[in-house]
Amino acid sequence: MRALRFDNALHLSTAEPDPSPAADEVLIKLRLAGICHTDLELTHGYMGFSGILGHEFVGELAHDAGPWQAGQRVVGEINIACGKCEFCKRGIPSQCSNRTTLGIDRYPGVFSDCLRLPIRNLYAVPDSVPDEVAVFAEPLAAALQTTELVHILPTDHVVLIGAGKLGLLIAQVLRYTGCQLTVIARQPHPIDLLKMWDIPYIEPSGTGYMPALAPRSADVVVDCTGSAEGFASALDLLKPRGTLVLKSTYVGLPQADLTRVVIDEIKIVGSRCGPFNAALRMMTQQQVDVLSMIDARYSLDDAMAAFEHASGRGVLKILLTP
Amino acid sequence: MRALRFDNALHLSTAEPDPSPAADEVLIKLRLAGICHTDLELTHGYMGFSGILGHEFVGELAHDAGPWQAGQRVVGEINIACGKCEFCKRGIPSQCSNRTTLGIDRYPGVFSDCLRLPIRNLYAVPDSVPDEVAVFAEPLAAALQTTELVHILPTDHVVLIGAGKLGLLIAQVLRYTGCQLTVIARQPHPIDLLKMWDIPYIEPSGTGYMPALAPRSADVVVDCTGSAEGFASALDLLKPRGTLVLKSTYVGLPQADLTRVVIDEIKIVGSRCGPFNAALRMMTQQQVDVLSMIDARYSLDDAMAAFEHASGRGVLKILLTP
Repeated sequence: MRALRFDNALHLSTAEPDPSPAADEVLIKLRLAGICHTDLELTHGYMGFSGILGHEFVGELAHDAGPWQAGQRVVGEINIACGKCEFCKRGIPSQCSNRTTLGIDRYPGVFSDCLRLPIRNLYAVPDSVPDEVAVFAEPLAAALQTTELVHILPTDHVVLIGAGKLGLLIAQVLRYTGCQLTVIARQPHPIDLLKMWDIPYIEPSGTGYMPALAPRSADVVVDCTGSAEGFASALDLLKPRGTLVLKSTYVGLPQADLTRVVIDEIKIVGSRCGPFNAALRMMTQQQVDVLSMIDARYSLDDAMAAFEHASGRGVLKILLTP
Repeated sequence: MRALRFDNALHLSTAEPDPSPAADEVLIKLRLAGICHTDLELTHGYMGFSGILGHEFVGELAHDAGPWQAGQRVVGEINIACGKCEFCKRGIPSQCSNRTTLGIDRYPGVFSDCLRLPIRNLYAVPDSVPDEVAVFAEPLAAALQTTELVHILPTDHVVLIGAGKLGLLIAQVLRYTGCQLTVIARQPHPIDLLKMWDIPYIEPSGTGYMPALAPRSADVVVDCTGSAEGFASALDLLKPRGTLVLKSTYVGLPQADLTRVVIDEIKIVGSRCGPFNAALRMMTQQQVDVLSMIDARYSLDDAMAAFEHASGRGVLKILLTP
């Protein structure tokens, strides 16, 4: 089969062996996959990953499996958990101490004709949700992990820094809390979408993230930049006792004004993978516009070109089809 | 009157003018004051402070004032709040946007024969609490801000890094949550106290803070070190979804592994000044041993020598008497 691999270099393998599912796993035929910022990071050495890339997908079962029938459309939780450790027992399998992660950490990903995943990781895609929407289930779940971990009040002033692929999903989720939301955005396509969705945004002045917002004016700041500069701006924007949500991994070890965190009694909350069932509910209710975030789709044959396209500044979602 | 001042250099002023209280303020005669790590930091330029140092005190009213009578023993909240800003209205005067801070930020401190403070900042010292205990009200309140901001569970494994003056008070507070507490301590005097109090401790190996504890084994870590090294060790010790409480201000901008915070969904909580009434309740109940933490007392006349003593490694509380 075809597979987009990273083994020190990105390359399309056209004679990749079909996956061999374990007893608790199923084979899934790819219907559609999405390229995430993490995929790009992995090709720069993040996590020391080697193998088939990709973790955002919608597929169909290649065979019957327990309660599941061949052809059933599914999306899948990307953390492959042990079911036995403290975190699995506490109902937090996404933090499993022994986990591998689909296309990210020691588990082959989805940019291929066929993939394998444990049955317990599957979520059925409702008939009303088309593939082009369902393929956003994983990033929308990650966006929802913001409100899963932090209680956003309807009276909060919330600033979201970084309107990329994940940021735009978080903006759509936060909008429904009733909060006073301001998104800091710099790229034309995200700004067009924010305008269309009627979500208030500000363009930062100069090259930094610091916008025309008063320092210490936000109850909550969500940093989707993954940059030291974004983190510093986020701290500057926060009120005392405010909450800073970190949604992106950072390059290196940024310098952090921890004294400010102490004096202003700020809370910082890291947030990662989120609830698929909630994401699918929002999709069924058509509460989130993901279709407008699709910039292009490429065949797996052209996966190298797709990656090149996805690496461009301000580019939103690039999809891969079998 | 006498006053220990810092004006680019530390010096004892023996002809300091008496304080002139504003309409809402009272004059307080010093009975006893304590030297805090922050006082030492201020003499190294922290906050750009200039004036009379000191914020830990017990005193007596120099005159009647409203419901208060001359001679009444008092301790005092160190944040002088405006009563009008958002944080004052939200009942968080310690985060007042317009605050000054006793002996720390644009308000003369307590290392003097007489001081002034707003009436609303006063707390009566119960008769059963001696001066030598009451003088710890401010740091014990700060210690209690840990449990004010973070819910410590009886089933939590809690690690406290840094057994200095504040750390030892926090250790005594945390002990009462029922949690499994481990203190990382290196100096002989704190270690003797922890032994006496039957609080488990570990001496770090080598020069770092990293002790013989498993990485990712703590539900909560309290960092009282104020050092980049302490912060890094604290992160290493935390379980996923764990909480890191920052209790000390940091020198400079430490590098921070924010990616770890995101992936492990860690919560970081800054914590500063705390509830005096709770501190006084614990003192009345004799729940906290502060007397064993007193290393020496000096007259104000010898305040320079007291500061020199307090700067020594592993030295605990140095008191100043009029």
